[in-house]
Amino acid sequence: MRVGVLTGGGDCPGLNAVIRGIVRKGVQEYGYEFTGFRDGWRGPLDDDTLRLDIPAVRGILPRGGTILGSSRTNPLKSEDGVRRIRETLAAHGVDALIVIGGEDTLGVAAQLSDTHGIPCVGVPKTIDNDLSATDYTFGFDTAVGIATEAIDRLHTTAESHMRVLVCEVMGRHAGWIALHSGLAGGANVILIPEQRFDVDQVCAWVTSRFKASYAPIVVVAEGAMPKDGDLVLKDGTLDSFGHVRLSGVGEWLAKEIERRTGKEARTTVLGHVQRGGTPSAFDRWLATRFGLHAIEAVRDGDYGTMVALRGTDIVRVPISEATAQLKTVRPELYDEAGVFFG
Amino acid sequence: MRVGVLTGGGDCPGLNAVIRGIVRKGVQEYGYEFTGFRDGWRGPLDDDTLRLDIPAVRGILPRGGTILGSSRTNPLKSEDGVRRIRETLAAHGVDALIVIGGEDTLGVAAQLSDTHGIPCVGVPKTIDNDLSATDYTFGFDTAVGIATEAIDRLHTTAESHMRVLVCEVMGRHAGWIALHSGLAGGANVILIPEQRFDVDQVCAWVTSRFKASYAPIVVVAEGAMPKDGDLVLKDGTLDSFGHVRLSGVGEWLAKEIERRTGKEARTTVLGHVQRGGTPSAFDRWLATRFGLHAIEAVRDGDYGTMVALRGTDIVRVPISEATAQLKTVRPELYDEAGVFFG
Amino acid sequence: MRVGVLTGGGDCPGLNAVIRGIVRKGVQEYGYEFTGFRDGWRGPLDDDTLRLDIPAVRGILPRGGTILGSSRTNPLKSEDGVRRIRETLAAHGVDALIVIGGEDTLGVAAQLSDTHGIPCVGVPKTIDNDLSATDYTFGFDTAVGIATEAIDRLHTTAESHMRVLVCEVMGRHAGWIALHSGLAGGANVILIPEQRFDVDQVCAWVTSRFKASYAPIVVVAEGAMPKDGDLVLKDGTLDSFGHVRLSGVGEWLAKEIERRTGKEARTTVLGHVQRGGTPSAFDRWLATRFGLHAIEAVRDGDYGTMVALRGTDIVRVPISEATAQLKTVRPELYDEAGVFFG
Amino acid sequence: MRVGVLTGGGDCPGLNAVIRGIVRKGVQEYGYEFTGFRDGWRGPLDDDTLRLDIPAVRGILPRGGTILGSSRTNPLKSEDGVRRIRETLAAHGVDALIVIGGEDTLGVAAQLSDTHGIPCVGVPKTIDNDLSATDYTFGFDTAVGIATEAIDRLHTTAESHMRVLVCEVMGRHAGWIALHSGLAGGANVILIPEQRFDVDQVCAWVTSRFKASYAPIVVVAEGAMPKDGDLVLKDGTLDSFGHVRLSGVGEWLAKEIERRTGKEARTTVLGHVQRGGTPSAFDRWLATRFGLHAIEAVRDGDYGTMVALRGTDIVRVPISEATAQLKTVRPELYDEAGVFFG
Repeated sequence: MRVGVLTGGGDCPGLNAVIRGIVRKGVQEYGYEFTGFRDGWRGPLDDDTLRLDIPAVRGILPRGGTILGSSRTNPLKSEDGVRRIRETLAAHGVDALIVIGGEDTLGVAAQLSDTHGIPCVGVPKTIDNDLSATDYTFGFDTAVGIATEAIDRLHTTAESHMRVLVCEVMGRHAGWIALHSGLAGGANVILIPEQRFDVDQVCAWVTSRFKASYAPIVVVAEGAMPKDGDLVLKDGTLDSFGHVRLSGVGEWLAKEIERRTGKEARTTVLGHVQRGGTPSAFDRWLATRFGLHAIEAVRDGDYGTMVALRGTDIVRVPISEATAQLKTVRPELYDEAGVFFG
Repeated sequence: MRVGVLTGGGDCPGLNAVIRGIVRKGVQEYGYEFTGFRDGWRGPLDDDTLRLDIPAVRGILPRGGTILGSSRTNPLKSEDGVRRIRETLAAHGVDALIVIGGEDTLGVAAQLSDTHGIPCVGVPKTIDNDLSATDYTFGFDTAVGIATEAIDRLHTTAESHMRVLVCEVMGRHAGWIALHSGLAGGANVILIPEQRFDVDQVCAWVTSRFKASYAPIVVVAEGAMPKDGDLVLKDGTLDSFGHVRLSGVGEWLAKEIERRTGKEARTTVLGHVQRGGTPSAFDRWLATRFGLHAIEAVRDGDYGTMVALRGTDIVRVPISEATAQLKTVRPELYDEAGVFFG
Repeated sequence: MRVGVLTGGGDCPGLNAVIRGIVRKGVQEYGYEFTGFRDGWRGPLDDDTLRLDIPAVRGILPRGGTILGSSRTNPLKSEDGVRRIRETLAAHGVDALIVIGGEDTLGVAAQLSDTHGIPCVGVPKTIDNDLSATDYTFGFDTAVGIATEAIDRLHTTAESHMRVLVCEVMGRHAGWIALHSGLAGGANVILIPEQRFDVDQVCAWVTSRFKASYAPIVVVAEGAMPKDGDLVLKDGTLDSFGHVRLSGVGEWLAKEIERRTGKEARTTVLGHVQRGGTPSAFDRWLATRFGLHAIEAVRDGDYGTMVALRGTDIVRVPISEATAQLKTVRPELYDEAGVFFG
Repeated sequence: MRVGVLTGGGDCPGLNAVIRGIVRKGVQEYGYEFTGFRDGWRGPLDDDTLRLDIPAVRGILPRGGTILGSSRTNPLKSEDGVRRIRETLAAHGVDALIVIGGEDTLGVAAQLSDTHGIPCVGVPKTIDNDLSATDYTFGFDTAVGIATEAIDRLHTTAESHMRVLVCEVMGRHAGWIALHSGLAGGANVILIPEQRFDVDQVCAWVTSRFKASYAPIVVVAEGAMPKDGDLVLKDGTLDSFGHVRLSGVGEWLAKEIERRTGKEARTTVLGHVQRGGTPSAFDRWLATRFGLHAIEAVRDGDYGTMVALRGTDIVRVPISEATAQLKTVRPELYDEAGVFFG
């Protein structure tokens, strides 16, 4: 039995731990051999492989990034993509593919598996934690930890200078990182993409915090949007969302707060720091277990499935179920955090 | 409505976050007032209280320990304990009690609530994560993180000197910290209290690691025990388990490994470092949510219950259910980790 | 003897450690009493004081910020500033003043001491480490540590996606933080305010790094400037330096690199995260010793002096010597780092 | 020109940074070639080498340990040691040797260089910071940082349970780690090998701390010794110093404190955790600069010298000067810290 492995999409701490888990168990318990494909779907598309055995996975558990490289290549966008993948797998004698990735990467795996009969097992990966069907994805805990540490540090500066400090964290479509790090860091306002925010309400919270002689920390997800559409159009800065992240919502919001409350406001944009570096213990544990269970699914011939965390158990779900819709922050969970606003 | 709060048992990062969550929500959303009791059950027993309001919980979220103090006092061991508690609660007009603690502390709460009609709501606390009925307890993730960081550091020393490094972590009756930190830290042997270990097997793993030109890390829970009973008696050092933790199983095992394999072995005992200091982001989030849901249970008059984590939800369970039996590491979970041994 | 203490200028980890050192030694060894002035020079100007005794300094050693508050108020800019300060000191019976601050705050202390006979002792404070007469200032090591950790994390993202990652760190006029964190983090390009950079040279280094199959990290001080003046004018973004920090040199440089090399480039601006939070062990040690020696200088009546670090010794120097000129990165030190560029 | 490099003695974070600095500058600026010797002096003795070029030093800057391995082998103890080293160097065409190590390893280098004409340049290495002629050695700052973090964590446990917590840190002959981490961590008692301690005095400090309603942290260097010789003999545990580190002075002292004050006391022994793992930013900067200057000394033919830190400058001193005597904590420096005792 020979198993191919690839990692697609954005960087995420824990990818190497998954790979190590797969290879250690596959080789030692099942006697499988492995082929690594480089840079996500580009690997099987272009027949770009690398050796993947026990020595190759030594020492990679605590290291961020992915030894396989990654890309956002979508093989279904090229006409002969499926054929080329099939040829590469055949050429290397690869019997099954373990695909570690997010919505896009897994979406391809689902289609290859369900429609084209290419045997795939999925491992969910999104630092934003916005994949359905799994309680958590690895990388998320690390990102929340880094953001929380940053918020901890911002508190003292806010207090010493009685300034508003806006901290922009990751989360284009889901506010999980903002919600968790905002709660853990003791933020006074948390803004998420799921609910458009009212700048005047934000300013009211900011002002009430100053009245209590404390300085506010505002945590805002990069994808959060103000309610007031006109304002956005008039201002224009917000048009560039996604393109010029650093002059994004955090910067814009700080200026609005300054303008409306007369208080000094500063922005910190954590950016890529949140997704690199050594994974947290939780993420190493989760990623390792995902790896162990993914290779078990291969052994069971349980293709088209994805490993997922439910409580403390690793289960298998259809890949398609996981990619069907985004897991966003439920309103009641956001409301729960509201007691700390202001 | 006036609510009493107490924290009992061992120190655990996140206790202050629970207290803050309770008070913030209780005061701001329900208009409740609070009485803090000092040092666990000693507080209501001796009528020792402290002010507990919004200013009292400011800034405590990231701080380890507990502003209420803690003790292992068991009021059911003194004949008039229940009466004295009842009197103290009456004297302060306390209508309900939120009890944050482990098996012992919650056991008292269950009995007071179920048998004596004193309205209690429980919040589970054990750094060892060995309480049933909840997926995780706060403090555990922090402890695992600290232990993992230590194991990360030990790796380089082990490799540079080709020595065995034994790392003794917390866990008297359950091996959760050893299992999670051992997996996350890439340990080569993990020993837990749930399964007696065979010293010769440990030595075989150690030796096989050296054969591959690497140096082994052995993670051992403080409550782990060797299979060979005679050996323990003969040696005698192990008799003192529980009493003299620092000359415990880690030290003993290192000596046995040296004696049987001829390789140098050193021990690190992490001790109290694992349970102090700032809580991890996960633990702050969990503890905060436990606090918010505990006060909600009080508002609902849902006494005799305890808040618990199930997946990503906070639910309520009978306190008695949680304290009925220890949550230990299931054999199949330990076996899963076995692929990394040796 | 009564001693006043104030902290002026920007936030800096270690300020509380200085205050604690002063008060502990002043009270316990010399029997002095203390008056804290709020918000830098604004305190003595507006007669805004706070209690400063042993209980007030308990537990503040590991905490960032300053319990005295800070401001950039310059009393010499108001006509009756000196008179008002003199009156406040007299009203409280303050015999001497310990002034903890940077160039501006200490400049006032020098003038008050030298020209107006108000007895001041200085403690140097600048997170940028750009004060002459002292080897290091506290806060700098913490900032370098935070920046280095961030650079560590950026490496894995850079490698996984083969992108240029630009990391903008503090340093308006001196490149110490960029130089130290860049060296410690293994940056491939370090740009400092002391030497205008050639964008084409930066691009050449970036390209050569990719040729070796690695992805480059560019560390740039916020005050670094490109050589090519025309370019700056044409682009226009750079005009806003100092005003709109987040759309500063880092962002500008990333765009230029993308445009000229065709490689994807992303920017991270660490901002205020670098100056908040708990001080490093080195900074706590240095700040504590500065405090102990400052109160010793008061006891010796050695006014007009400032404590300073020379090697491992704390010495005293005239305040005016320290503020006379900025301590910038010497060319040969920058050249030394050049071996790691590209 | 071909240069040999070896690392001897105990593990120390920063060793890899030195090696990288040497090789990067040697290859890129001077066109030198390198030979790595394995396991300290054992390498040249047994002709055990490894490839040392630019690829070999990639990515090692943040990694603890040493890619060259280490040992305590003393070649001067074997009769033909010098001859065998000379032969190995000749066989590989090695023109000069850079020796990275502590007192013992450098002592050999001094003798080889001064007596036997084997051209050596030294780089000082001791985690204990006890080498003369240099302000600091790399690794020390990392160890102090780890110990300080541990002490930070112990504070909350001490306070929550009103217990004495004894923290044993490294330092057999010099108390630098205890002094720096004790000061930085806010310890209430610091005990160092340079001054025998009076257990009754320690107990008096402990008791006075409890009287102020706080719980004490006692930081003790592993080599610290009580004044009372009889006591030590009577107790007997202390005989095993150096052999059974974990049942060392920390454990002994905790028991004595319990016995004499009636207060609960617990010990944490940090052990090898202090010397492994990623170096601090300061240590990476210092180690890198040591490497750059060591290869410069080779280029200058300045043999028999060692690089050293003086203030912020790297200078050269005779190796023999550095190894002539131990750098211990001066009494006045220890007295300075005394204000925080009790």
